[in-house]
Amino acid sequence: MRLFKLILCLMVITHVVMAQSDPLPSWNEGKAKSTIINFVTEAIKPGGANFIPKEERIATFDQDGTLWVEQPEYTQVVFTADQVRELADKHPEWRTQEPFKTVIERGVEGLKTLSEQQVAHLIAVIHSGMTVEQFLSTVNAWLDQARHPRFNQPYTKLIYQPMLEVIRYFQENGFKTYIVSGGGQEFIRAYAARTYEIFPEHVIGTAGKVAYEYQEGKPVLKKLPEVLFIDDKQGKPASINLFIGRRPVAAFGNSTGDQQMLEWTRGVPGNRIALLVHHDDPVREYAYGPDSRIGTFSDALMKEALDSGWIVISMKNDWKQIFSFER
Amino acid sequence: MRLFKLILCLMVITHVVMAQSDPLPSWNEGKAKSTIINFVTEAIKPGGANFIPKEERIATFDQDGTLWVEQPEYTQVVFTADQVRELADKHPEWRTQEPFKTVIERGVEGLKTLSEQQVAHLIAVIHSGMTVEQFLSTVNAWLDQARHPRFNQPYTKLIYQPMLEVIRYFQENGFKTYIVSGGGQEFIRAYAARTYEIFPEHVIGTAGKVAYEYQEGKPVLKKLPEVLFIDDKQGKPASINLFIGRRPVAAFGNSTGDQQMLEWTRGVPGNRIALLVHHDDPVREYAYGPDSRIGTFSDALMKEALDSGWIVISMKNDWKQIFSFER
Repeated sequence: MRLFKLILCLMVITHVVMAQSDPLPSWNEGKAKSTIINFVTEAIKPGGANFIPKEERIATFDQDGTLWVEQPEYTQVVFTADQVRELADKHPEWRTQEPFKTVIERGVEGLKTLSEQQVAHLIAVIHSGMTVEQFLSTVNAWLDQARHPRFNQPYTKLIYQPMLEVIRYFQENGFKTYIVSGGGQEFIRAYAARTYEIFPEHVIGTAGKVAYEYQEGKPVLKKLPEVLFIDDKQGKPASINLFIGRRPVAAFGNSTGDQQMLEWTRGVPGNRIALLVHHDDPVREYAYGPDSRIGTFSDALMKEALDSGWIVISMKNDWKQIFSFER
Repeated sequence: MRLFKLILCLMVITHVVMAQSDPLPSWNEGKAKSTIINFVTEAIKPGGANFIPKEERIATFDQDGTLWVEQPEYTQVVFTADQVRELADKHPEWRTQEPFKTVIERGVEGLKTLSEQQVAHLIAVIHSGMTVEQFLSTVNAWLDQARHPRFNQPYTKLIYQPMLEVIRYFQENGFKTYIVSGGGQEFIRAYAARTYEIFPEHVIGTAGKVAYEYQEGKPVLKKLPEVLFIDDKQGKPASINLFIGRRPVAAFGNSTGDQQMLEWTRGVPGNRIALLVHHDDPVREYAYGPDSRIGTFSDALMKEALDSGWIVISMKNDWKQIFSFER
């Protein structure tokens, strides 16, 4: 035990020495990078005017479009379309029943015609009866074989290297880093620990209800075909309050779905930053704005960002490298 | 920064030296105490058969009757009865409307006639329209002046010293300590940080819905008169899954409301403990069992505890001291 603690102690000293190097090597110098570094530097300076006590160092990150690619479709939408087709054999009634029929016949294109609520409901319905563990295995089996149509990489490799550096930088400086996503909570939990080192208790997302049952005398949690809450737009500050019970001091998003989370973060005075990833790089990734069906970056959002002192991250100009797999 | 880290390092060394002393001084020697100490000792032993990686060190604690006194009434029930009477002036319609009428006329005695669902609903209704911050202030203002009828102490002093030592012992050994209570989440959050050093993100309880609104251009979260979920019985494993996404390795409860949480914790093999506080000390605290209206310790629960290898903590025999204020 003593030896273990002394090794830990040596690791702390090593860390002090290493902390001098650039924490965000994939970022070009500019306002976005300097804002993040200044914020953290000030936040951890004991006695400084902008010091943030360790327990209040909460940073929240949207997932789709902020931490990984969301074009041409949300990953979970591709997964869901695949799942509806795969599970259709067990549910012959789906062939004539909407919205299943549309999805069976037209796949992702059919799913795209549904509203966010309809998709959330569909996701809840198709996996109902599964235990939570079975669902996690199903997601991981799918992620193992699925490839992104353009980059021909597993989706879990399509995470943004610069954002990964931000997460690590925050974590190393005592911040708790939460994902706050409109996507399914369990879907994200399936891979967030290995991709971001963000553990299940720090993953907040749209959630379904579960039932506590016994299977062969052992308790299980089975997914029910009902949505508990949708974690998007106004739902994000609400879920942050539910799960964390404090306002974040830093929030990262990329669309109108994140607007309220950023407002909430900056809604009280103090050392607080809000940042939006702007997809303006059609060569290395995608460029999309107010006209996008997903990840909408509306003109009103850009105006609010400029009026409110939020930082707009230009993928094209601020990021030296986009994806982690490019390393 | 360097100085700060070196101080931290000295603290680690001091901690190694101090770790030799008894971590649970308010506990008498016995099976309960030795089970807890053996569990933690094994859990942190690197390479040991019962080692638990740091990220999986999750311990959950029921609140009423496990961490603080719940007799003769749940504290939140007393608070709610007081609130209904205080707010009744602004709601003349309550005087003729149930269940308000009963509570206005008969106070706590009236409230006791309602079901758990009715109480949860009543709590949601009476504070609807308040912001979350206003509710926290209201709870704290009440806690500042309220006194327990028997011990004539603030409720926040009626926490169990032996359990406080368990929480601290777990925390110092890298465990995350969560409260998982049938009581209101925000009610507990109002005092849990100062009483237990359990921060809001580690408080899970029965939760209400909130609305995101703007007040003078600033975002607020207003309480709605609707319950989101009830965190009791089967609701406890469900909320543990929702908030934490992993099974606890240690769980503490005291009643049939905690049964499923303890089953869930011990539902897979490995180094996992489940403990029940048994209120069998009418002299220093209370004695109540299957006949209790609250905190029910049924015969079936005692049987399940014995059959399943859960540890029953006898307040009378296992605890040298009961309350923190007795120090």
